[in-house]
Amino acid sequence: MQEPSQLQIELMTVAHELADAARPIALRYFRKSAQGLENKLSDGFDPVTLADREIEQAMRDILTVQRPDDGILGEEFPDIPSKSGLTWVLDPIDGTRGFISGTPTWGVLIAINDGDAPVFGIVDQPFTGERYCGGFGTALLRHAGREMPLETRQTTTLSESVIFTTFPEVGSTQEGDAFHAVAEQCKLTRYGMDCYAYALLAAGQVDLVIEAGLNAYDIQGPLAVIAAAGGIVTDWQGGDAQHGGRVIAAANATIHAQALEILARY
Amino acid sequence: MQEPSQLQIELMTVAHELADAARPIALRYFRKSAQGLENKLSDGFDPVTLADREIEQAMRDILTVQRPDDGILGEEFPDIPSKSGLTWVLDPIDGTRGFISGTPTWGVLIAINDGDAPVFGIVDQPFTGERYCGGFGTALLRHAGREMPLETRQTTTLSESVIFTTFPEVGSTQEGDAFHAVAEQCKLTRYGMDCYAYALLAAGQVDLVIEAGLNAYDIQGPLAVIAAAGGIVTDWQGGDAQHGGRVIAAANATIHAQALEILARY
Repeated sequence: MQEPSQLQIELMTVAHELADAARPIALRYFRKSAQGLENKLSDGFDPVTLADREIEQAMRDILTVQRPDDGILGEEFPDIPSKSGLTWVLDPIDGTRGFISGTPTWGVLIAINDGDAPVFGIVDQPFTGERYCGGFGTALLRHAGREMPLETRQTTTLSESVIFTTFPEVGSTQEGDAFHAVAEQCKLTRYGMDCYAYALLAAGQVDLVIEAGLNAYDIQGPLAVIAAAGGIVTDWQGGDAQHGGRVIAAANATIHAQALEILARY
Repeated sequence: MQEPSQLQIELMTVAHELADAARPIALRYFRKSAQGLENKLSDGFDPVTLADREIEQAMRDILTVQRPDDGILGEEFPDIPSKSGLTWVLDPIDGTRGFISGTPTWGVLIAINDGDAPVFGIVDQPFTGERYCGGFGTALLRHAGREMPLETRQTTTLSESVIFTTFPEVGSTQEGDAFHAVAEQCKLTRYGMDCYAYALLAAGQVDLVIEAGLNAYDIQGPLAVIAAAGGIVTDWQGGDAQHGGRVIAAANATIHAQALEILARY
């Protein structure tokens, strides 16, 4: 990998600042009951909505100061168009159903898009303290004060593969059928991991993640991390996945091609 | 709750010693590839089998010295009959499919059975560093150097409930149908959490866990923790769940009764 430029180092520093700002806010709401949140909850918001908004606002406040010419595409507030060519793509809490169930499978997703594609991404899991980052010549997991390289697996057949999706129904009936046609060929199918499944793929723990109905902000962070770790993320036709929809993430091109061939029948 | 007796304090101390011994062994194998394990793997064992055996052996070694008259019922080695009336029920790695997929959903399960029922239990998740314990007048989570009380939720209707099971198929077709008949009435259904789902129930995060095909060592640790936290664990007929099989864990008696009524139709 190439050494990152001065601008790239600056952008990565800001991305980590955003993730650092998100963590304590997310943890303040995670696994908390309505107690202590009563005033805010009486306005009709649930804890995850409060966390979502407060985190995205905190991230936007940092960007306004540090990167005033960059655009912002976030889940919670209106888009800000880019003057610099760069856009920050933010999902403050991806996996809200996991968040409200207490599972450490949700994440804070951050991507930097250069107008063509997400070029740097972060998948941060505040409860476990894991931060998966990739792009600008880096691919690593920060955890427990250490940095470990991220590298996807070299599995060569579906029959040796571990596949994930969050909900067994996946999306429409047709989308569910397509997923399960791939999963039937795999060694092991698991559910319920939200964006954490993409992090595990980047870390070489699983081989495939196939989902449908995603938004741009759900996939751009994971996409950049996985690409940097040697994996491949596309839509179900093998095209650009940055705008969301039906997405397949694979540990390598061989597994990707085998799964895509099955998905193409649907 | 009553203050624990001297014997109970001694038993809890030994239980924590077992969990402490298990953690570093589990983490040595978790998320590791075949590299560095080649000699052992050439004997035909996978990382999770190695971890399972090494942990259970370490726990048995401690019990042999500290509690020589107690029985042992473990997953990996032959049963040791009890001379004291007490039996240790051990599952060194519960959730092996989660373990090999890199998800922090597996756990080390420990129970102390007094001949009638599990009276103290531990569900330990080494990667997140969470230890859920219950029995002998205590119900708490140790995490990040702190102790927090465990208390199940007071949800009163299925329509407000969050329900978990590990695999969408649950077990036989009939068992799957029964689970989904309950799940259809719930607010949210999630999958893939292995024994961590029981810990979340004890912690007041979810309302129901329904599974089938369990062994005694899969459920006795969670059962004791949940009972101590105010929940209820039975088989699908409302009878004793300590021997495994079809199990329902509920946050309270109201939710338990509502779910049991549906399960009884299958």
